[in-house]
Amino acid sequence: MELITIRELYREKEKFIGKEITVGGWVRSIRDSKAFGFIVLHDGTYFETLQIVYHDTMENFAEVSKLNVGSALIIKGELVATPDAKQPFEIQAVSIEIEGASQADYPLQKKRHSLEFLRTISHLRPRTNTFQAVFRVRSLIAYAIHKYFQDRDFVYVHTPLITGSDAEGAGEMFQVTTLDLEKIPFTPEGKVDFKEDFFGKATNLTVSGQLNGETYAMAFRNIYTFGPTFRAENSNTTRHAAEFWMIEPEIAFADLKDDMALAEGMIKFVIRYVLENAPEEMKFFNEFVDKGLLERLTHVMNSDFGHVTYTEAIELLEKNNDKFEYKVSWGSDLQTEHERYLTEEIYKKPVFVTDYPKDIKAFYMKLNEDNKTVAAMDLLVPGIGEIIGGSQREDDYDKLTARMDELGLKKEDYDFYLDLRRYGSARHAGFGLGFERCVMYLTGMGNIRDVVPFPRTVNNCEL
Amino acid sequence: MELITIRELYREKEKFIGKEITVGGWVRSIRDSKAFGFIVLHDGTYFETLQIVYHDTMENFAEVSKLNVGSALIIKGELVATPDAKQPFEIQAVSIEIEGASQADYPLQKKRHSLEFLRTISHLRPRTNTFQAVFRVRSLIAYAIHKYFQDRDFVYVHTPLITGSDAEGAGEMFQVTTLDLEKIPFTPEGKVDFKEDFFGKATNLTVSGQLNGETYAMAFRNIYTFGPTFRAENSNTTRHAAEFWMIEPEIAFADLKDDMALAEGMIKFVIRYVLENAPEEMKFFNEFVDKGLLERLTHVMNSDFGHVTYTEAIELLEKNNDKFEYKVSWGSDLQTEHERYLTEEIYKKPVFVTDYPKDIKAFYMKLNEDNKTVAAMDLLVPGIGEIIGGSQREDDYDKLTARMDELGLKKEDYDFYLDLRRYGSARHAGFGLGFERCVMYLTGMGNIRDVVPFPRTVNNCEL
Repeated sequence: MELITIRELYREKEKFIGKEITVGGWVRSIRDSKAFGFIVLHDGTYFETLQIVYHDTMENFAEVSKLNVGSALIIKGELVATPDAKQPFEIQAVSIEIEGASQADYPLQKKRHSLEFLRTISHLRPRTNTFQAVFRVRSLIAYAIHKYFQDRDFVYVHTPLITGSDAEGAGEMFQVTTLDLEKIPFTPEGKVDFKEDFFGKATNLTVSGQLNGETYAMAFRNIYTFGPTFRAENSNTTRHAAEFWMIEPEIAFADLKDDMALAEGMIKFVIRYVLENAPEEMKFFNEFVDKGLLERLTHVMNSDFGHVTYTEAIELLEKNNDKFEYKVSWGSDLQTEHERYLTEEIYKKPVFVTDYPKDIKAFYMKLNEDNKTVAAMDLLVPGIGEIIGGSQREDDYDKLTARMDELGLKKEDYDFYLDLRRYGSARHAGFGLGFERCVMYLTGMGNIRDVVPFPRTVNNCEL
Repeated sequence: MELITIRELYREKEKFIGKEITVGGWVRSIRDSKAFGFIVLHDGTYFETLQIVYHDTMENFAEVSKLNVGSALIIKGELVATPDAKQPFEIQAVSIEIEGASQADYPLQKKRHSLEFLRTISHLRPRTNTFQAVFRVRSLIAYAIHKYFQDRDFVYVHTPLITGSDAEGAGEMFQVTTLDLEKIPFTPEGKVDFKEDFFGKATNLTVSGQLNGETYAMAFRNIYTFGPTFRAENSNTTRHAAEFWMIEPEIAFADLKDDMALAEGMIKFVIRYVLENAPEEMKFFNEFVDKGLLERLTHVMNSDFGHVTYTEAIELLEKNNDKFEYKVSWGSDLQTEHERYLTEEIYKKPVFVTDYPKDIKAFYMKLNEDNKTVAAMDLLVPGIGEIIGGSQREDDYDKLTARMDELGLKKEDYDFYLDLRRYGSARHAGFGLGFERCVMYLTGMGNIRDVVPFPRTVNNCEL
């Protein structure tokens, strides 16, 4: 169908003023007096709406006037400039075709709805202003991330979702199976007989694509993943979902400094992209969701991020231990309260905390010369705390296997990973960015359930 | 690290000739005579390699000369133009730092390896020419698809992977569960007690994001999904994987014609993007994988795709029934042999087949006025057969529910989907593109296992 979009009208007003055009969209509100009426139309292509004026000279004037909110219409008419009105133009309708009426019990009547209520109608909530803004911005952030890496010739790698490695904390993983749960087959030893399962072995949903990603970094040098990951954590918070998307770049011939520069560049690029490509939506968030948002993001975009070692950070935090629920000392994991204190109160900008104690970090992180800390980094941002976690990877075969032995990890489970250290090992580093946390950060939305189209959380898997 | 990439050298030769630069990469081959040696270096950023010349004036000349294929090196030296050689330039090394040696049993020695063998080392195969080409092109195709839709202001929607709807042929779906398979809990009626499962109900991995995608099209008008999908089909073919990626755009205020125009535009855009951005890789495929590839793709890019109704197609095919293993008649599903005959022999270009009998298509496809066929389309391409399947969706509540009744589908399972027809229904259409099939089509690779980084198939879930 040859319809002009509201986005086109706003982009190229001059081209259309005075012309007869056809638009299609959904009724946000409708009111009529005796001889004419007004429709506020939204077509999904642009955050702003379009006003339609229609008259009783129209054959179906009465029928149109009786329409409910949410109805789909196709409207032909002249686009007229309205220099004195709030909106820059309106359509003087010549004809209105009812594409699809809306029943009177439409749940999205013209009033404010709570986010909680809207979560119960996840198939309809994208029609509201808030979720129009959230999900357009989510889409733009995703694209900005791709663009950032592709502009730098990174290779996008689809690491697998179903994984046979049960090496990483299987307790919090979802199992994937085609076995008949009513008749699980058992081996003579009384164990589940996975030989009869689809893959001939036990399989789970991945919690990270990093180890697979590293194999591609050792071939392409610079790669990134962007795909779903899963956690079967029984935690019902505003920040956790069972299914979420993650970005995991991995760079070879690169160290922790390169890794931090990559992360800082990415965050700034994404903020700039969204501010440039969704100004209306970002203004909406700033007015109705999070008053300080634009100022904060602009500040981040224009700051050099801070750098502090974990050891220095602990010294700074210990002086303020009276302010924290959990007191810190060297060796403790940082909680959100500490992270936010560092970035919001001390640095007042994003800050990388580096060189954590090896005992609170993963086995694959590169051991520093002090033998106590590893070349890890977390990026903390105001309003959220940790948004990115990364590290240089241990590229030395002997050090890596020694660490695995300390932790009781079986080398045969990581044979492919050790091969990377056997055959042309090179220093390399990477990080993980939780995509939803990034969307929350850029929109000011406070609950992860409101930035995922169809969220999956404990006891919740609707639609 | 400040390394110059081989890609940069090829892009901006003039800038670097005569300068001392530092590069890093992996040894593809190495040979030495008494006083000097040659290294062919690959750094993963570019399809071509870089020749390094090194001399016995170098302190570690002997050590370097003993290195194995696959070793990682950092090399400093002058970039020298070599107008008489095959390669445009080489590096006269001043120093070679061994970043990581490679053991003598490195599986990728300098010789040809079979694709079958390389499948057994999926963590190393991206270091070979073939898989360098495949996975860079895969990455570029993914980005081109995003770019195509984002340039047109489509909203990218992440539809869920874990789904509670068991409505779509549960037999071929993977179950997702956190229940202890050794101790499945049962209800008093002897059924599995999913109340104790993570989501409080039975859940599966999605086979399509379409129905969820439609809800967003009715809010944003134009959307697309791009994410993993799963089939637990026990079919061990060169075209099926248990985990694959799919693109599913959905457009509102749009009919089947719009849908086909969108698909045709996308295919042409993606081909052009890849030819422009990976000319070396595409030349490689054309020479070593599929001799007619470039000619075929160029032809597709410059053809208007054909259009034929299913009914007409059957008439054409029936005349050639003697050539087919499966004879066709009106009502039969088209097999690959028929699809390829249509596109390769009759049309000699991509062709859309439209208006299939309703009984061989899904319940949600829009019924045509003949009451026998639906507004479906499949795009057939030479060398592959079906690459895209789509349709206009039934937007009429009564017709849709009547069809669901005919097929015995429960309306309560589709309540959210029917809401789209209750509240401002609008004509809309969409299609699905199997991403791996698209990669096979553009590279000429014949086995899906060779275009997925870590393929998942029956009895195969390695790494």
